[in-house]
Amino acid sequence: MESQYKASSNGVIEHGITNGGEEKYVAVANKRKMVGWSLFLRVAAVALGLAAAVVLGLDKQTTTVAMQLVPTLPPVNVPVTAEWHYLSAFVYFLAANAIASAYGAISLLLILANTRVANRKIDVIVVVLDLSTTALLFSSFGAAAAVGIIGHEGNSHVQWRKVCNVFDKFCVQGAAAMLLSGGASLVFFLLVAISILNHHNKY
Amino acid sequence: MESQYKASSNGVIEHGITNGGEEKYVAVANKRKMVGWSLFLRVAAVALGLAAAVVLGLDKQTTTVAMQLVPTLPPVNVPVTAEWHYLSAFVYFLAANAIASAYGAISLLLILANTRVANRKIDVIVVVLDLSTTALLFSSFGAAAAVGIIGHEGNSHVQWRKVCNVFDKFCVQGAAAMLLSGGASLVFFLLVAISILNHHNKY
Repeated sequence: MESQYKASSNGVIEHGITNGGEEKYVAVANKRKMVGWSLFLRVAAVALGLAAAVVLGLDKQTTTVAMQLVPTLPPVNVPVTAEWHYLSAFVYFLAANAIASAYGAISLLLILANTRVANRKIDVIVVVLDLSTTALLFSSFGAAAAVGIIGHEGNSHVQWRKVCNVFDKFCVQGAAAMLLSGGASLVFFLLVAISILNHHNKY
Repeated sequence: MESQYKASSNGVIEHGITNGGEEKYVAVANKRKMVGWSLFLRVAAVALGLAAAVVLGLDKQTTTVAMQLVPTLPPVNVPVTAEWHYLSAFVYFLAANAIASAYGAISLLLILANTRVANRKIDVIVVVLDLSTTALLFSSFGAAAAVGIIGHEGNSHVQWRKVCNVFDKFCVQGAAAMLLSGGASLVFFLLVAISILNHHNKY
């Protein structure tokens, strides 16, 4: 049994054991399959992040609420509007998803270009930036979820009243944006995890 | 110039180039230095996460606010209390930091035991769990920060009034817990990044 180290097309050295030559080709085939999966996941991350940013960016609802302006007169219907940028957590959420999808698109181009040039440094930079994007998306998800829960449930201790009973459509659209962003977060998480599993098992 | 692959004490194969024998020993020394740094960072992560959980868990403030109960009578001083578990984001924050520090301690023991047994699978599991802990801590930081900002600034659009002008000590202690947790988040992030840099440069 003889060990072989071979530089692959994307700059990662592959370890094939030429036990009749078969295992080596299985390893190369598995490697290609995994690179294909990673590219698919990256495209999915870009689409999910972009969709989350757009769905939240278009989130706006105007409705009327009955307000008792003068105690002796009947209540008046007053128009009220909810927009995504009213809450700083949602601004952060939209910015994070926009940055994540833009980075995802750039990294996709870098990886596709790198399969020919085979620069290992680019591979490392992409994984560390994937990790940073994962952290960014998870923090923005936490921020939006925390505000979303207060908007949905309210909090009697600090007298913050729920607003989703009034802005129902606004809250549903916000929840959809969070679902999309949650997907993008998990995909970036998976990309880092796959890279770790791939490189830590490379001996 | 001849390449050598050698299994190190912690199960990772080291690549030393015997260019006069010196470079090999430099690589081994660097490796040891890095393992030492990783252990130090892990101890710091445990301490920071635990401190964040304890500082928030002890966060409680009772104060009095002047309330006009009956319009014809002067305002009455009413005692009001703020506790960390009044807001679900803070409950999540405390749980996340407790889990992170407990996991950090367990992983520390696993790594120390693994330096003798040299099981590569444990190495991979620890990095993936470090990544999960990073995601958990960043999401809890985002959640606590989003609620903290509303508590500090208030939000006129949804009529959520700021509470930090009343619960000043409560908010300062909460901010301290966040600072500690932010440190723990960054340390876990660094642990994953160091592992990626280490293993992706291993050829």
